[in-house]
Amino acid sequence: MKLQKNHQILIVGLGLLGGSYAEALTSAGYHVTAITLSQEDIDYAVERGMISRGAAFVDAELVGAADIVIFALYPHVFKNWVRENQQLFKPGAILTDVTGVKSCIVDEIQSMLRPDVEFIAAHPMAGRECSGVRNADASIFKGANYVVTPSGRNTPEAIALCEDLGRTLGFARISRLAPKEHDEIIAFVSQLTHCIAVALMTCTPSGGEHTNRLEEYTGDSFRDLTRIARLNDEMWSELFKLNKYALLHQMTVFEGELNRMRSMLELDDTEGLREMMRKSTARRALFDKKL
Amino acid sequence: MKLQKNHQILIVGLGLLGGSYAEALTSAGYHVTAITLSQEDIDYAVERGMISRGAAFVDAELVGAADIVIFALYPHVFKNWVRENQQLFKPGAILTDVTGVKSCIVDEIQSMLRPDVEFIAAHPMAGRECSGVRNADASIFKGANYVVTPSGRNTPEAIALCEDLGRTLGFARISRLAPKEHDEIIAFVSQLTHCIAVALMTCTPSGGEHTNRLEEYTGDSFRDLTRIARLNDEMWSELFKLNKYALLHQMTVFEGELNRMRSMLELDDTEGLREMMRKSTARRALFDKKL
Repeated sequence: MKLQKNHQILIVGLGLLGGSYAEALTSAGYHVTAITLSQEDIDYAVERGMISRGAAFVDAELVGAADIVIFALYPHVFKNWVRENQQLFKPGAILTDVTGVKSCIVDEIQSMLRPDVEFIAAHPMAGRECSGVRNADASIFKGANYVVTPSGRNTPEAIALCEDLGRTLGFARISRLAPKEHDEIIAFVSQLTHCIAVALMTCTPSGGEHTNRLEEYTGDSFRDLTRIARLNDEMWSELFKLNKYALLHQMTVFEGELNRMRSMLELDDTEGLREMMRKSTARRALFDKKL
Repeated sequence: MKLQKNHQILIVGLGLLGGSYAEALTSAGYHVTAITLSQEDIDYAVERGMISRGAAFVDAELVGAADIVIFALYPHVFKNWVRENQQLFKPGAILTDVTGVKSCIVDEIQSMLRPDVEFIAAHPMAGRECSGVRNADASIFKGANYVVTPSGRNTPEAIALCEDLGRTLGFARISRLAPKEHDEIIAFVSQLTHCIAVALMTCTPSGGEHTNRLEEYTGDSFRDLTRIARLNDEMWSELFKLNKYALLHQMTVFEGELNRMRSMLELDDTEGLREMMRKSTARRALFDKKL
């Protein structure tokens, strides 16, 4: 099942990601509408031609007209929204999302959902260190990964539609993971990395008073490792909490590896260190974006 | 004391940094020569107009003609080079370097050096995840930091000349640190970050077989934190070894902070986590490059 040009697409939550979806889908020729909290954001998006129209309230007509509804909300807001408004969906509508955790979302939404509507979850692995529709930018999807996370309740048709959505948005690689696998992997590649960046930024290194002006002495390595240390505390604390056990486990894995390195350094095991660095160098080559 | 256009500048070691220095200084109108291991690298740099001439051996005439000699070598190679060839320096010559560790270098070089020649150490906080003169690029200095690390034996004139060199190269911010302070701070902003990147790349996260194809599921956060995981194992293992105790200490500081975060997560201390994230966000704003 493919996206069709006569499909009406509604985006709920017009922030950085919702706005970037809107921009990409409108550019690709689809009919896109939006519902979000602020009328100013709707006005901005309409003026920029990102959406054809929108509402700052739950507009029954917009919801009822949509063949595809994309949720770009905080996890708990998303669940509440569906619980309270699902009677408005068009029969046969496909719902999808951009939520960064899946186990707790997919099961809960699918369990409560009307049987004539299907929710197929996805996680676009793209973002920026800023938020809001004014920072929306469809180019963040270029070269990036898009992960569809179906459960046993999803139909092949909805999965195919969701994958086609990822391609239409411009993602370079579309893959599938079960929700639990997704959450384990995201705990490592995304949540742990944010924890590391925050810890680097908040700890007090030795080095006396100069560490108060660390920005004068830093190079690109520290800038790179802390770009994501500028983050939305409300969203990230919620994502961490919803994936707590997977994240704690990946922290343990990472700390074990850092301690292995520490031991090599303590024991002057230069060959061991060099072997780790060579492995790291070879493996990192796989991770370059394919632009 | 300022750089003067009639100063002859010799670069010893024409790799990524040496080559980028050559490019920047020649563009700024200085007379630049080079000594490096490979004649091919000399030919490349002459053809590109990065240097006026050079040699793949210790050419007494080139060394004797230089007012300023810039060493861009591995630490142990640098020390040996000075020990074996210092009789060739022009009286009054100023030596400087790009070495990433200072305590062990500055004292040793200054102790062995002829009294009519002065070594003033500096650390350009710029680099790339690749090496060699073919990757040289003077634009890496733009917006970057340059740290001069004088000891009590340095003259104000040499310090001023070295700072002027940093400005001429295009660095945005020139500062001073004592060698020991430099090494503590560099252990944190540069060496620890490389350890983290390598550990992220070499550890085996949970998530089953999918972790063998992690590149399919990753976003920019993981790419950012591991850009520097592609590194020169010979150089970095030497730098780690030469700064072992400072690095071990900063590892402890960082792990302590990560564990503080882990405890908050375990105890569902959402407000504590959000407070850390807000502090991190505010502090990170200071670290943007000023381009």
